[in-house]
Amino acid sequence: MLLVKLGGSVLTDKARLRTPRKSAIARLTKELAGLGDDLIVVHGAGSFGHVLARKYALNGPAVPAKAKGAAVVQRDVRTLDALVVDGLLKAGLAPVVLPPSAVLGLDDGRVASFDVAAFREYVRQGFTPVTFGDVVRDATRGVSVCSGDILMLELAKAFRPRSVVFAADVDGLCTADPKRAKDARLLLSVAAADLSLIDFGPAKGADVTGGIEAKVRRMLEIASFADETIMVNGNVKNRVRDALRGRIVIGTRVVGGH
Amino acid sequence: MLLVKLGGSVLTDKARLRTPRKSAIARLTKELAGLGDDLIVVHGAGSFGHVLARKYALNGPAVPAKAKGAAVVQRDVRTLDALVVDGLLKAGLAPVVLPPSAVLGLDDGRVASFDVAAFREYVRQGFTPVTFGDVVRDATRGVSVCSGDILMLELAKAFRPRSVVFAADVDGLCTADPKRAKDARLLLSVAAADLSLIDFGPAKGADVTGGIEAKVRRMLEIASFADETIMVNGNVKNRVRDALRGRIVIGTRVVGGH
Repeated sequence: MLLVKLGGSVLTDKARLRTPRKSAIARLTKELAGLGDDLIVVHGAGSFGHVLARKYALNGPAVPAKAKGAAVVQRDVRTLDALVVDGLLKAGLAPVVLPPSAVLGLDDGRVASFDVAAFREYVRQGFTPVTFGDVVRDATRGVSVCSGDILMLELAKAFRPRSVVFAADVDGLCTADPKRAKDARLLLSVAAADLSLIDFGPAKGADVTGGIEAKVRRMLEIASFADETIMVNGNVKNRVRDALRGRIVIGTRVVGGH
Repeated sequence: MLLVKLGGSVLTDKARLRTPRKSAIARLTKELAGLGDDLIVVHGAGSFGHVLARKYALNGPAVPAKAKGAAVVQRDVRTLDALVVDGLLKAGLAPVVLPPSAVLGLDDGRVASFDVAAFREYVRQGFTPVTFGDVVRDATRGVSVCSGDILMLELAKAFRPRSVVFAADVDGLCTADPKRAKDARLLLSVAAADLSLIDFGPAKGADVTGGIEAKVRRMLEIASFADETIMVNGNVKNRVRDALRGRIVIGTRVVGGH
C-alpha cells in the first residue's frame, strides 16, 4: 500500500480564492499511475477551502447558521476534488471519492468515527480511493475543519503503508522558513528529537489546519505506522513518482518513533 | 422529516448522455427551500448514470477492470449532483453531500451496510443531506448500481418521515404507459392489491435500476414507513413544493401495507 498526500499549496494558488494550478494537477495525477501497488490519494483543500473556512470561523465553537458557510466550503473543495479525479481518470486509474464529510466524524476536533471499511473494500476492487481536507460534522462544535493530514494519520494506522509521501511546495522541511531566513537549510531527515532545533516562526501565521509545527508532529506520528515516510517537492517533475517507487530523492525523510 | 426524490427523468434529458435540464434543477431546488421541516434530498442519475452504467454492464457479475467504468460513471453522476447542490445553496439551504459510494455497501445488489448516523448528525446540525443514484461497492459483484429508490427506502426506514414525495416526469402512476396506451388513466392512489390491475408493459424496456414495476413495489414498501407518500409531476411548477407542504395535489398517493 502506498499513501500520498498532494498538498493544497501544490494543487492550488493558496493566495487566490478557488484558483487551481491545473498543470500541476495534470502532472501529479499522471505520476500516480502505473506504480504497481495499491494507492490511496489524499489532497489538501488549498485556496478552495482555507480562505472561506477562516472567514466563516468553521474551526471555532458552534454558532447558528454555521451550516451554510460549511456547505459553501464543502462545495468549493469538491470543485478542486473533481479536477484531481479527472486527472486520475485520464491517467488510467479508477478513482473513487470518499469525502471525509461522509466517512468521518469529529468530536471537538478529534476523530470520533472513521469508516475505513469503505477504503479497504474499494482498494480490494481495484479502485484508488481519493479523500481530502474538508469541513465535517463535529459532535461538540457542530462542524469543524478536518485536514488532509488527519486523514493521512487514520489511513496510515489502518493500512500500515509501505510508503507515505507528502508532496509540498518546498524541497522538504528546513531548519527555518527559507522565505524568511537566509541560512535555513534542508533537513534530510527529521525525528521527534529534532523538533527543538527547528525555528517554526510565529504561530499567528498558522492556517486553519494548525500550522507547520502541528503538521510536522502529525507527520512523525504517521511515520510510525509506515515503512518509509518522506516529504518532497511536488513542483519538481517526477519527484513524487520516484519517491513512491522507493528511489532516493531530495526531500526530508520523516523518522517515526517505533 | 420530509424526504424527496427528484427523478433523473426530471433533472436530465434521459435520452441524451450527460444532459442536465438546468431550469428544472433551478426551479425544483428552489421549491425545496423554506419548508419549515428537516429535509433529505435524493436524486436520480438520469442520463449522467444510466447510459454508461448499461454500457459497462455495472449491474452484472464481477469482471476485471469494471472499476474503471464505475469510476467514470461515479464522476459523471457527481457532475449532476454538483448542479443540484448549487441550486440548493442558491435557494438558501445548507446541502451536505453523502454519496452512496461512501456511506453504503451492497452484497449481490442488496444493502449490506448503510451509515445512517451521518445523515442523522448533519440534519441535527441544520444541513440538508443530499444523496443520489450511484455505482457502489458490492461484496459479491465488485460494484453494482444503487438506485435512488434503494436510498429512499433506507432513509424512510431510519427517519419515518412525515411526508415522502417522488418527483417524476408524469402526473403519477397510470393504469398503463400513457405514451403507448390511449386509454391509460391516472391512479389517484395505489396499494399492493392494485398491482395486478396495472399493465407495466414489456420488461425489456427496464432501465439499470429495474423498471417501473420494481419501482412501484419499492414505493409501496417505502410508504409503509411514512405518514404520506405521493408521486407527483416534477415538471409542473410548485407541485413538489405543495406536496411537501401537505396540500392536496394531482398525483398518485402510495398506500403502504401497515
